Amino acid sequence: MLLEAAALDVGTFPPMAQYALGLDFGTNSVRALIVDCADGSELATGVAQYSSGDEGVITDPKDHNLARQNPLDYHASLDLAMQEALKVARATGDFDAAHIVGIGVDTTGSTPMPTMYDGFPVAMEEEFHDNTNAMAWLWKDHTAYAEAEEITDLARKQGRPYLAKCGGTYSSEWFWSKILRAARLEPILVEGPTDTWMELCDFIPGYLCLEEAGQVPRSVCAAGHKAMYSGEWGGLPDKDFLAALHPALAGLRDRLYEKAYPSDRKAGGLAQAHAEKWGLRTGTPVAVGILDAHAGAVGSGVGPGRLVKIIGTSTCDIMVASHVPDIPGVAGIVDGSVIPGMIGIEAGQSAVGDIFAWWSKVCGKSQEELAWDASRLRAGESGLIALDWNNGNRNVLADPLLSGLLVGQTLHTTAAEIYRALIEATAFGALKIIQRIEEHGVTIEDVVACGGIAEKSSMAMQIYADVLNRPIRLSRCAQAPALGAAIFGSVVGSVHADVQTAQAAMTGFKDVQYLPDPIAVTVYARLFELYEDLHDAFGLSDRFQVMKDLIAVQKEARNG
Amino acid sequence: MLLEAAALDVGTFPPMAQYALGLDFGTNSVRALIVDCADGSELATGVAQYSSGDEGVITDPKDHNLARQNPLDYHASLDLAMQEALKVARATGDFDAAHIVGIGVDTTGSTPMPTMYDGFPVAMEEEFHDNTNAMAWLWKDHTAYAEAEEITDLARKQGRPYLAKCGGTYSSEWFWSKILRAARLEPILVEGPTDTWMELCDFIPGYLCLEEAGQVPRSVCAAGHKAMYSGEWGGLPDKDFLAALHPALAGLRDRLYEKAYPSDRKAGGLAQAHAEKWGLRTGTPVAVGILDAHAGAVGSGVGPGRLVKIIGTSTCDIMVASHVPDIPGVAGIVDGSVIPGMIGIEAGQSAVGDIFAWWSKVCGKSQEELAWDASRLRAGESGLIALDWNNGNRNVLADPLLSGLLVGQTLHTTAAEIYRALIEATAFGALKIIQRIEEHGVTIEDVVACGGIAEKSSMAMQIYADVLNRPIRLSRCAQAPALGAAIFGSVVGSVHADVQTAQAAMTGFKDVQYLPDPIAVTVYARLFELYEDLHDAFGLSDRFQVMKDLIAVQKEARNG
Repeated sequence: MLLEAAALDVGTFPPMAQYALGLDFGTNSVRALIVDCADGSELATGVAQYSSGDEGVITDPKDHNLARQNPLDYHASLDLAMQEALKVARATGDFDAAHIVGIGVDTTGSTPMPTMYDGFPVAMEEEFHDNTNAMAWLWKDHTAYAEAEEITDLARKQGRPYLAKCGGTYSSEWFWSKILRAARLEPILVEGPTDTWMELCDFIPGYLCLEEAGQVPRSVCAAGHKAMYSGEWGGLPDKDFLAALHPALAGLRDRLYEKAYPSDRKAGGLAQAHAEKWGLRTGTPVAVGILDAHAGAVGSGVGPGRLVKIIGTSTCDIMVASHVPDIPGVAGIVDGSVIPGMIGIEAGQSAVGDIFAWWSKVCGKSQEELAWDASRLRAGESGLIALDWNNGNRNVLADPLLSGLLVGQTLHTTAAEIYRALIEATAFGALKIIQRIEEHGVTIEDVVACGGIAEKSSMAMQIYADVLNRPIRLSRCAQAPALGAAIFGSVVGSVHADVQTAQAAMTGFKDVQYLPDPIAVTVYARLFELYEDLHDAFGLSDRFQVMKDLIAVQKEARNG
Repeated sequence: MLLEAAALDVGTFPPMAQYALGLDFGTNSVRALIVDCADGSELATGVAQYSSGDEGVITDPKDHNLARQNPLDYHASLDLAMQEALKVARATGDFDAAHIVGIGVDTTGSTPMPTMYDGFPVAMEEEFHDNTNAMAWLWKDHTAYAEAEEITDLARKQGRPYLAKCGGTYSSEWFWSKILRAARLEPILVEGPTDTWMELCDFIPGYLCLEEAGQVPRSVCAAGHKAMYSGEWGGLPDKDFLAALHPALAGLRDRLYEKAYPSDRKAGGLAQAHAEKWGLRTGTPVAVGILDAHAGAVGSGVGPGRLVKIIGTSTCDIMVASHVPDIPGVAGIVDGSVIPGMIGIEAGQSAVGDIFAWWSKVCGKSQEELAWDASRLRAGESGLIALDWNNGNRNVLADPLLSGLLVGQTLHTTAAEIYRALIEATAFGALKIIQRIEEHGVTIEDVVACGGIAEKSSMAMQIYADVLNRPIRLSRCAQAPALGAAIFGSVVGSVHADVQTAQAAMTGFKDVQYLPDPIAVTVYARLFELYEDLHDAFGLSDRFQVMKDLIAVQKEARNG
């Protein structure tokens, strides 16, 4: 006891707080979160919407696949969010921005954009100012669907290993699909000779440190599977593979990167210009960027045996494990994408909250009203079962052209019963992913949820606990991605030795915990058999082409 | 010319009009229609609701299968409807009730009730006054579902021919199922010794003529398939078959009838008591009763090659042909049930308008609003397909435990698109019936529709024309069943020589005609293939038991 008291006397009392800054670049806004490195408690937060387009997303009424962002919005909104967060922090009394020891960055992805050699976006140049192809190609831009198929086909034809880490199918949402399309539409954006392309989660650290594009250490989280990067085949895909797609892609490979890094590594030091503006120390360590879902998992305490589900309009499922084989239908498996030294596993469902919102709109009832009625139903009581494919299936079928299905309606079926059946369907979809991962030797012992649906719908969370037959806890921090980014900030700031130590100190759970109800578990086990039957019949077999046939009929009817 | 003028001089000028009276006993009310035998034009109509229960239907909150009617309502409401019709008729000026030359009767069915030897209902006796088992068992009473299965099983086991005319499955809605259940619940209602059971469509002519039950010529329309009556096996089922079900049924057979008759035959003459009350001539011929759908077909001009569809909450499809083989899945095939001397074919769908009304309720939008939006869609444009089984399937699968299915939903699917898909599904179901009948050598050249949906929804009728790829005309008379009954009145009243002659004079079509649109026909032909695929997979195969499994899970969840 004496020793302890003596130790306290040595330092300042109270000891100087150490803060980490997490910058979270979402689809519509950027969030700056300042947290205490000691316990992860939130000191201040600032949020700023992007100003261009529709809530920050530039769309094209003639092509609903297009979704771009103006890179200048990132700069402007970052500054607004920072000023707001710093103002709130200073209002607490004894905060000094110089006590921010490190900065972490998470962003959406794959969101690549063409940049100049100095790391600034090509869209800043006057001739490209209004050119959507020179902007950031937002993760949900699907204009490159044909290019994605082409890449998948070529990799299969040439027997390349590149699809092994992305479940067997390359997506239109990813890096090479988008750049291949850009190369075809406007070769100059890819051909160089001095320009390159950066993922948003590399672009932001580069901007913070004002580094040249070539000097920014790239994120393995964004590079892995989305850019087909893997140590197993020596980094990015071979030049001859890229050349077969488009000569400009092979040229671009030389102006990208040879190696990508996990986010406990420092990307650089905060540039003087930013430091002076915000009151931080020049050179404050900035971590290598990370994708938002992965950061959210870190902020929710992901670790071996623990699945983190970020449940919002769609769902991201993130895990880590020491060893993971390739898992068919699960994208993507990347060394160090979540926690350095461990294999990250990323899966997901292409629509969850979006399906509930769709049904609320169709039936003209609020989700609060539907949830109130649906929560009074017992498992199985509606006599309904649905497939959760209104926006296609991301995992484990990886087929964007699948569609929804509902069976069991009578003349007495209510809107609330259908609402509940849709929630159950998404839970069954979640179980398919868990089972696929476990079949490949990765055990999932507990589940932590975060995101809008997890925060808002206790009925959905109880159904998930019953269907998954596992307790579900909620991440203590409602802004888990920003907290995850801050955790990396605390590590590059040398407050914590590594990510796990930082997580132990800075993450936690809410008091509420959803425990499986044994009766519901039994009922849902039976319903899941029916779900699987429909899942395989409509998703796998050649027997039922009805969903694809309907799309073909629809296409002709619209054009006819 | 001289001769004609002379002939005119002989009679009164203008010649005395001859009227027929059609009495239509529906589910909720009775309608009295007075028409001119010369051209079928309506002189007057009177309608009276039944006063007991919920709109005339006595239900049991503890058993949603129960649907009974108080037989005294038939007497009281008939008198009210008659007084109303006669008042309206007399207001026209030169009407005299004595100019009513004949009376026809149609009713719901199978709606059997226990009666005393004098033809009055057992429910009139004080001790049975409030006993629902002593009332009329309305067509849609499904309490005898277990008894129906028992009857089907026994007929199959014993290799009896009795199921040949009802598509292979005996229904809980029919005569013997209901009486078997009554015999088990209250044997005294079946055991006699002097009481018997009558179908509503035999009971009413008996009441009009005040004949003893044993003297009323029974309707072959109600007896055929519903009471398993056929000349092919000598009338009603054998006593030993009935005895194996319940001894009281064998005893009852002696107190029923040996022979049943078509409705161009006179059941008797109007009793003096009724005649004096209403001002008709005593002894005015009353025709043998007929079921309402069959009367509706006659009133819509049914004849060889012409299908009449009565499209309302559910659908009845009626045809006639000279020769008809047994048709699996089609109930029922009865000699003389529609037009004497021809084989009547009756099929139907267990829910049509009921499905549209259900969806309107679920999505909280009026059918007018839904129809407005849905009518602007092209065939196939929604990318949806549905099965029309929300109330099971009556034909051609004859499986009441099937349920609804919808496939193809995306996040953009609207309530109006689903509404249209449900209408299309009922049209596909209608086409299945037509194809099944045509596969057995009965050609359908044109289609005439009547009933609420036919009258109200021009969009539905256009979709039906496109799906069936046949022109659809509408019956001129909106009260086709009552007109059909009146046609039989005109025949037993000797104004017309036979039903066909009467139809030629008294029926017709509305000016509107729905013609198939070639583009929509092509699209729907493709969609019908998908419908058939789903129809067979979910309705026939052992592979997909999901609808039945869901009902089992639901039952346990409700009890559990």
